[in-house]
Amino acid sequence: MSLAAVDQKRLQDFLLNIRNKTDQFLGYPVSKDFDFQPFADFLDLPLNNLGDPFVESTWKVDSRQYEREVVAFMADLFRAEKDNFWGYVTNGGSEGNLYGLYLARELYPKAMVYYSQDTHYSVKKNLHLLGMENIMIKSQPNGEINYNDLHGAIKMHRNRPAIVFANIGTTMTEAKDDVRLILEILEDLVVTEKYIHADAALCGGLAPFISPRIPFDFQDGVDSISVSGHKSFGSPIPCGIVVAKKNNVEKISRSIDYIGTLDTTISGSRNGHTPLFLWYKIKSLGKKGMQKRVDSSLAIAQYAEQKLLEIDIPAWRNDNAITVVFPQVEAWIKEKYQLASANGITHLVLMPSIKKSQIDSFVLDVSR
Amino acid sequence: MSLAAVDQKRLQDFLLNIRNKTDQFLGYPVSKDFDFQPFADFLDLPLNNLGDPFVESTWKVDSRQYEREVVAFMADLFRAEKDNFWGYVTNGGSEGNLYGLYLARELYPKAMVYYSQDTHYSVKKNLHLLGMENIMIKSQPNGEINYNDLHGAIKMHRNRPAIVFANIGTTMTEAKDDVRLILEILEDLVVTEKYIHADAALCGGLAPFISPRIPFDFQDGVDSISVSGHKSFGSPIPCGIVVAKKNNVEKISRSIDYIGTLDTTISGSRNGHTPLFLWYKIKSLGKKGMQKRVDSSLAIAQYAEQKLLEIDIPAWRNDNAITVVFPQVEAWIKEKYQLASANGITHLVLMPSIKKSQIDSFVLDVSR
Repeated sequence: MSLAAVDQKRLQDFLLNIRNKTDQFLGYPVSKDFDFQPFADFLDLPLNNLGDPFVESTWKVDSRQYEREVVAFMADLFRAEKDNFWGYVTNGGSEGNLYGLYLARELYPKAMVYYSQDTHYSVKKNLHLLGMENIMIKSQPNGEINYNDLHGAIKMHRNRPAIVFANIGTTMTEAKDDVRLILEILEDLVVTEKYIHADAALCGGLAPFISPRIPFDFQDGVDSISVSGHKSFGSPIPCGIVVAKKNNVEKISRSIDYIGTLDTTISGSRNGHTPLFLWYKIKSLGKKGMQKRVDSSLAIAQYAEQKLLEIDIPAWRNDNAITVVFPQVEAWIKEKYQLASANGITHLVLMPSIKKSQIDSFVLDVSR
Repeated sequence: MSLAAVDQKRLQDFLLNIRNKTDQFLGYPVSKDFDFQPFADFLDLPLNNLGDPFVESTWKVDSRQYEREVVAFMADLFRAEKDNFWGYVTNGGSEGNLYGLYLARELYPKAMVYYSQDTHYSVKKNLHLLGMENIMIKSQPNGEINYNDLHGAIKMHRNRPAIVFANIGTTMTEAKDDVRLILEILEDLVVTEKYIHADAALCGGLAPFISPRIPFDFQDGVDSISVSGHKSFGSPIPCGIVVAKKNNVEKISRSIDYIGTLDTTISGSRNGHTPLFLWYKIKSLGKKGMQKRVDSSLAIAQYAEQKLLEIDIPAWRNDNAITVVFPQVEAWIKEKYQLASANGITHLVLMPSIKKSQIDSFVLDVSR
């Protein structure tokens, strides 16, 4: 098996091109500070974590022991009850959200789903896939859910269980919905059949290290949390972690003869490399290293906001956010730095590896 | 960032252990003949093929040009209409099936889904996820769908569109449902609102190279095909390809402002490495190399069947199958070779890299 010279050349050029593109982007919440070349040997092996990571299988070429440790680490960060969590490494934040919503639907098939208008587009797609009736709630100008509107909407449907999809860091402005306020609304209206899923794609890896504490985790009242791996931790391959309450998951599991395991995951075959990457990152950083990364991201975000304000760009950030928001920029700048935009705004997302010098170049380009 | 010595040691041991486990397995349809260490450099880069592979995006760190070539190659193998195909690289066969069923549901929301009892368990899970009403059809003893039972079931529901989920290689016996016979049934009952999805997880990469031709592709009458990448082609990471008719997909796409692209895929963020692996494999093997792999698999399958028969194990194969089926074996053998089993039978799946000497060892163990 060998590749023609022309294809080899093409692949080499592609590698260089993608390296440049990776250096340049400032507009996507993707960590760049990783190096997984030590895992090159694993590129020979057909790892597959099929089925439930917590149940043994006849198939042995897996990294499920590492996956379990990653899930347990995140469950601890998310303050889950010690013996009442379950989870797995997903293919990304969207799959974790799909899982949380699926679980909620199984528990409350007749529920209404509420989510803010700043929610990621994939959620609407997931709700459609799952056939779940839903109401979009207004957002506040900063991107956070409008609690009055939420209260009003739930009040209109008190006859049905409520599933609230909370954003812990919206896509455009990194706004965090306050889970305790959401819970207060549900309690005020005495809606006892309730489920809160936290989409912490971006902030799940940051929020536990920010003070004052952001109310978003199991002790604050959520039932499941989805976090992205390639966003918070860094991974060459998109991945994520979903954590849910074990007693809820057990209600929907079904025994599968074929693989000799209980299958409670969404996918069948599952990536065995990304759990290794996440494990490696968690083990080598530790909580201390993670704290440091968050602090440095926040410092750079503050710096970027300041620098943009200095050239009269009305930049702003949500409290303790690493996302700096400002009006849409010219097309060539958007292109150069790969900036996402929506509704007339754009943003920088100051992931750990981004340097002051990159901000300076960006600000220089904008000031031209 | 660095790993403690104890963790480094653990990872090294794990690598060795997984290498052994990979050498030993004979019971899962996973190719082992690959070496992607030349791609080690890509382990530094956060590739992400988010969104539709055929539409440009503001995000540039992707391998979508390679993904498009992989899809086009498969569409050609599957004899899709030249300008009427669409597809993407999935996280595995299950996601491709989910996609096919989702597409079918969008086209025919009130349809009934029919599938044989030998269908992979994940399909039932998918149908539940999608909330699609469905009827399980009896199988023939070889695992193929019972066409009389299918005829009878569709006849009972002629008032509804029909979605037939066809297996092109069932999980346990590699039985292939005949798409032309299915089409004849639908035509006989004049059910004109119809959709056929082919789950060619195992055989999608083999069937185009087998003669006499297996009726399973677009010219035979299917509307979408899902194939596994790690099964047919070999990949360290589970993946697959789904191909569907472009005009059908266009009906369900929706514009997404945020990423500046039409998003018709199921996931949000998507793996950018697996399309490279598949591209590499396709380019380096070519159709000739693929033909050779299939021929050698079939020869080894015939050898294994013969050897088992020689020691009075009633082994059998479906026509031109690489799966050899026989009664369940003792637990230690099942464990040693990682054999899946269901309903009293088990199987070897003779993927390209398996050698005669491995069959001989296995037969020796069984004969003890």
